[in-house]
Amino acid sequence: MLSGEVRARLVAIVGEENLLDSTQDLIVYSYDATPNYQAMPDAAIMPRQTQEVSEIVKVCNEEKVPIVPRGSGTNLCAGTTPVEGGIVILFQHMDQIIEIDEENLTVTVEPGVITQEMIEAVEEVNLFYPPDPSSMKISTIGGNINENSGGLRGLKYGVTRDYVIGLEVVLPNGDIIRTGGKLAKDVAGYDLTRLLVGSEGTLGIVTEATLKLVPKPKTKKTMLALYDCLEDAAKTVSKTIAAQIIPTTLEFLDQPTVQVVEDFANIGLPTDVGAVLLIEQDGEPEVVERDIEKIAQICRESNALSVEVAETVEQGEQLTAARRSALSALARMKPTTILEDATVPRSKIAEMVRAIEQIAEDHNVQICTFGHAGDGNLHPTCMTDAREKEEMQRVEEAFEDIFAKAIDLGGTITGEHGVGIMKAPYLAWKVGEEGVTAMKAIKQALDPNNIMNPGKMFAKSARKRVVVSR
Amino acid sequence: MLSGEVRARLVAIVGEENLLDSTQDLIVYSYDATPNYQAMPDAAIMPRQTQEVSEIVKVCNEEKVPIVPRGSGTNLCAGTTPVEGGIVILFQHMDQIIEIDEENLTVTVEPGVITQEMIEAVEEVNLFYPPDPSSMKISTIGGNINENSGGLRGLKYGVTRDYVIGLEVVLPNGDIIRTGGKLAKDVAGYDLTRLLVGSEGTLGIVTEATLKLVPKPKTKKTMLALYDCLEDAAKTVSKTIAAQIIPTTLEFLDQPTVQVVEDFANIGLPTDVGAVLLIEQDGEPEVVERDIEKIAQICRESNALSVEVAETVEQGEQLTAARRSALSALARMKPTTILEDATVPRSKIAEMVRAIEQIAEDHNVQICTFGHAGDGNLHPTCMTDAREKEEMQRVEEAFEDIFAKAIDLGGTITGEHGVGIMKAPYLAWKVGEEGVTAMKAIKQALDPNNIMNPGKMFAKSARKRVVVSR
Repeated sequence: MLSGEVRARLVAIVGEENLLDSTQDLIVYSYDATPNYQAMPDAAIMPRQTQEVSEIVKVCNEEKVPIVPRGSGTNLCAGTTPVEGGIVILFQHMDQIIEIDEENLTVTVEPGVITQEMIEAVEEVNLFYPPDPSSMKISTIGGNINENSGGLRGLKYGVTRDYVIGLEVVLPNGDIIRTGGKLAKDVAGYDLTRLLVGSEGTLGIVTEATLKLVPKPKTKKTMLALYDCLEDAAKTVSKTIAAQIIPTTLEFLDQPTVQVVEDFANIGLPTDVGAVLLIEQDGEPEVVERDIEKIAQICRESNALSVEVAETVEQGEQLTAARRSALSALARMKPTTILEDATVPRSKIAEMVRAIEQIAEDHNVQICTFGHAGDGNLHPTCMTDAREKEEMQRVEEAFEDIFAKAIDLGGTITGEHGVGIMKAPYLAWKVGEEGVTAMKAIKQALDPNNIMNPGKMFAKSARKRVVVSR
Repeated sequence: MLSGEVRARLVAIVGEENLLDSTQDLIVYSYDATPNYQAMPDAAIMPRQTQEVSEIVKVCNEEKVPIVPRGSGTNLCAGTTPVEGGIVILFQHMDQIIEIDEENLTVTVEPGVITQEMIEAVEEVNLFYPPDPSSMKISTIGGNINENSGGLRGLKYGVTRDYVIGLEVVLPNGDIIRTGGKLAKDVAGYDLTRLLVGSEGTLGIVTEATLKLVPKPKTKKTMLALYDCLEDAAKTVSKTIAAQIIPTTLEFLDQPTVQVVEDFANIGLPTDVGAVLLIEQDGEPEVVERDIEKIAQICRESNALSVEVAETVEQGEQLTAARRSALSALARMKPTTILEDATVPRSKIAEMVRAIEQIAEDHNVQICTFGHAGDGNLHPTCMTDAREKEEMQRVEEAFEDIFAKAIDLGGTITGEHGVGIMKAPYLAWKVGEEGVTAMKAIKQALDPNNIMNPGKMFAKSARKRVVVSR
């Protein structure tokens, strides 16, 4: 609980109406989209402007009160669970699109803007913001920046980091800094912009962001290819890239995922196939036409059972929606759904999926796999029940094996979900103890009192998943 | 001078033949491409592999000997001048292309590889590495990474940072770490990869890099547009982007630069025009054709005096070569050539060029301006004589005014050349004292003994240009 004095100082900054600390409020902000992590904050606070954020941070830094900046809490690494208490900062009052600059192809936003709303706003003036995390209907740009969110269009267009070109940030000492700007090029000092993107709120609080936009693609086409076995699907991915075609989207669903998605969405997906690829290309009409034709040919040469190109935009969107619904569909199956994002070099996809199947069998757990095949970014998803301690132990062990295999194949423990609490025990597997030491040195340098989202990214112990009943 | 003991320890690592400390050797490595900075190192050293780099760094860290990692010394910010003595590390023995991976679209190289040689090697298998700094014929990839080099293709394709996806780095304590990998997505911890890119050798030594490649564009076309006044050229830039066309290259030369380039290269450029735009588009043939036609139309609508599309690839390359020769051509004019790279938002180009003209007049100095108009990245270039102290004082003041104007327009003190010694006194103008403090904290955290390229990026005093006779 906040001391009376700290509470009074915070209320003096934001007003009584913008500090929430009733039990129901605290419960709301005690968890995020990650199963099995829950911890109560001492308060949630809703600043109205950057200056207030800075004042809040100064109080917290003096009083050593932890701060968790939170968007919509859709992250999947327990990145916004207030595991050491303290205050959760919310951006409901800082949710404006400040400017769309059509000459410089930028949009400047406050952190609380909903991703999809911003995407729609820039598309209205024929511009395009490519990163499209599955949570984009409710996620905020501030959250996307903290987690360096990916999405379905990452293969061709990259991730959030590739579009953040300027930030206003409140540092852990309360200093307000501005990095980058409406600039295509800037090498004035260290790249604090990219250091902050994906730093999970552990180095500062983003209070404004300038994002790069690109022209909106003139057209797009969507197709679906069905396979008997996943090796053929993987072969299609390799051959497409080798043919110098970079599709916008190259998504993979394994058989169990297709089954579950079809049960959920009823869009007529065949449920008896070994693997499905969802492929999308966008751009200039004749190039899209040619690419889609070539990809269809590659699918057939790779033994696709069928290749279907959506005839209308609506039909294409229905196919994409099916893929986007995978997590929701899987979440219906069992009380607890754990979605991971082990990532490997693109060429290792088939090997990784087979390994996941074997690992699931070895540990007797149910894992479906789907994900961004073109990026090597897979989402092995386990349907389980957090109340079954013994099963959860096996799930934990299975995921450990999956991470180890990903690293073994030159991959990483997390492609787009972040480290948070969930992957902290495995960070050294990817970056080495020396890498963790370097990262901790940076954290310590900027946040000596460890007030910014403490307990995230760096593990205190080897303890893995904190199981708390919800 | 190195103590006998330190010298002996370094020789024990690399062998006598790989430690250079004769006077002529030291003079060779006492300066880089930046005029008017010179300082003698104590030795130059040529490690043969990463392990040797690590051992060298450990000795230097123990003995507090400064280390300056150096590619080909083509940087323009005095980034590789050994201003505090110590050893210069050379990568002549670490110059191999380790692997071109056609499945994952990556190339893995040692730092000493010459940029152009790598570009040619990947183009042989129909892949493409876009960053093309003007120095690419002699610059090294290691140097490009340290400086986050730009180039003529930056508008469409971005800069070096956008292509570095994995690094092997020796940290200032001698630890060897690996960041990233052949991965389209990786959010395991802080983005050390991008923090190191552009850190000018102040945070560690790059010993291997994995770079992202893209498919080689099928075709490209080059055109030249001539204008009476630069406002019309700037209008062409704005209108092109507003028409949703992102050309590969959109270069600008003012009248004095055109005159000097033509005198040097004799390719038939008209020397009596107010401004020239060099425009290039690459990609799929029909799209390139259409874009070039549209851009030509925009040029004419913006009052271009003439618009000429190169009929052959050779003719196009001749035009590009003319632009690439701008610095060499200008350098013939006077004993000292100072090339700057103040950068502004694209929409502010005309205003910035006019301001530069006014500032040159105010201080009675000769400044030609050319650069990457599409990026807002200008190269105001001063032809002067370092021996004329009074004139140099005026040059210094003029550049100060130019930096101030760039900042005023939402720009930066350096778009692609780096801070080094030259811009260190101005860094706070861009990032604020608070930003400099944050950057210094990171430097201090990773390099507490300040052995890595000391004296760069952060100014010790307000002293600007150290004039040393060459």
